[in-house]
Amino acid sequence: MPPVAAMGVTVEHYDGACLRLHAPLERNVNDKGCAFGGSLASLMTLAGWGLVTLQAQAAGLEAEVFVADSQVKYRAPLFADLRAGARLEGGSDDWSGFAAALRERGRAQAFLLADIELPGGGIACHCRARYVAITKRRDDLALEKGET
Amino acid sequence: MPPVAAMGVTVEHYDGACLRLHAPLERNVNDKGCAFGGSLASLMTLAGWGLVTLQAQAAGLEAEVFVADSQVKYRAPLFADLRAGARLEGGSDDWSGFAAALRERGRAQAFLLADIELPGGGIACHCRARYVAITKRRDDLALEKGET
Repeated sequence: MPPVAAMGVTVEHYDGACLRLHAPLERNVNDKGCAFGGSLASLMTLAGWGLVTLQAQAAGLEAEVFVADSQVKYRAPLFADLRAGARLEGGSDDWSGFAAALRERGRAQAFLLADIELPGGGIACHCRARYVAITKRRDDLALEKGET
Repeated sequence: MPPVAAMGVTVEHYDGACLRLHAPLERNVNDKGCAFGGSLASLMTLAGWGLVTLQAQAAGLEAEVFVADSQVKYRAPLFADLRAGARLEGGSDDWSGFAAALRERGRAQAFLLADIELPGGGIACHCRARYVAITKRRDDLALEKGET
C-alpha cells in the first residue's frame, strides 16, 4: 500500500489483544514541526484495521476489513515518532462474538479504541472507530489464488 | 509537508467559499485497489485546514490552524482519483464571525464539512471537523522572518 509505505509504518508489538504500530516523525511532519493530523488519524485507523484483520485470521477466516466510521480527538501536538495502539472497546479483549458472527453470518462489526501517546505521558490523540469484516466468497479466493 | 507530498495533493479549485483538493489514486491505493481510508480522511482534513488558513489570510491575519476533532463516515469504496471539497458548515459561507473572533480574541474556531465524491455521483465519504485558529504572536512572526 503506497500511502502506508510513504508513512514508514512498521508493527511494533502485537500480543493478541493490542496492536501497536510505529511511524517516524520525519515522514509525517507538518508545517509546525509536529505530527500531521492526517498521519495521526491514518496510523490509528490502520492499527484498528490491522487488529480486526488479525482477529479474523486468528478465527481461521479470510475477510475483507473496512473502516465504516471514526471519531478522532486531537488533544496535544506530538513532536516525536508516532506510536498508535488499538484494542477492542470495552476492555474485555474478547473477540469470540466477532468471530462467531463472522463465521455464521459472513459479516461482523467491531468497535475499537486507538490512541497515540505523548513521550512524556498523556495522549496526543484518540480515536473510536467501527470496522466491518466480510468473509471472502470461495470464488473470490479462487480468483486471488489463480485457481480460475 | 512530507506526507502531503507523498499523497500527491494539489489544489484543484478555490472560489472563496469552497476549497477542492485532488490526489491521484495510485499514490493512495489500498490492498483492495480502492482509496485508502487514511488518505480519504487526510485529504478531507487537509481541505478543511487549507480553507480555514485561507480565510484567516483573507482577513489579513497570520494564524496557526489546528484540527481539534473530526467525525468521518465512509460510505462507498472509491476506485478513482480523490477529490475532496470543504466548506463552512451551515451553508452560509459567512466567515465574518470567525474573522472578528480571531482579530479580537486571537483565537477562533470553525466547523467545516468536507466530502469526497464518487465519479458517477454520490459520496465516497463525509467528514465534519472542528478547526481552531490562533493568531501568531508578534515575536513568533519576527522569529520566522529572522528579525530577532
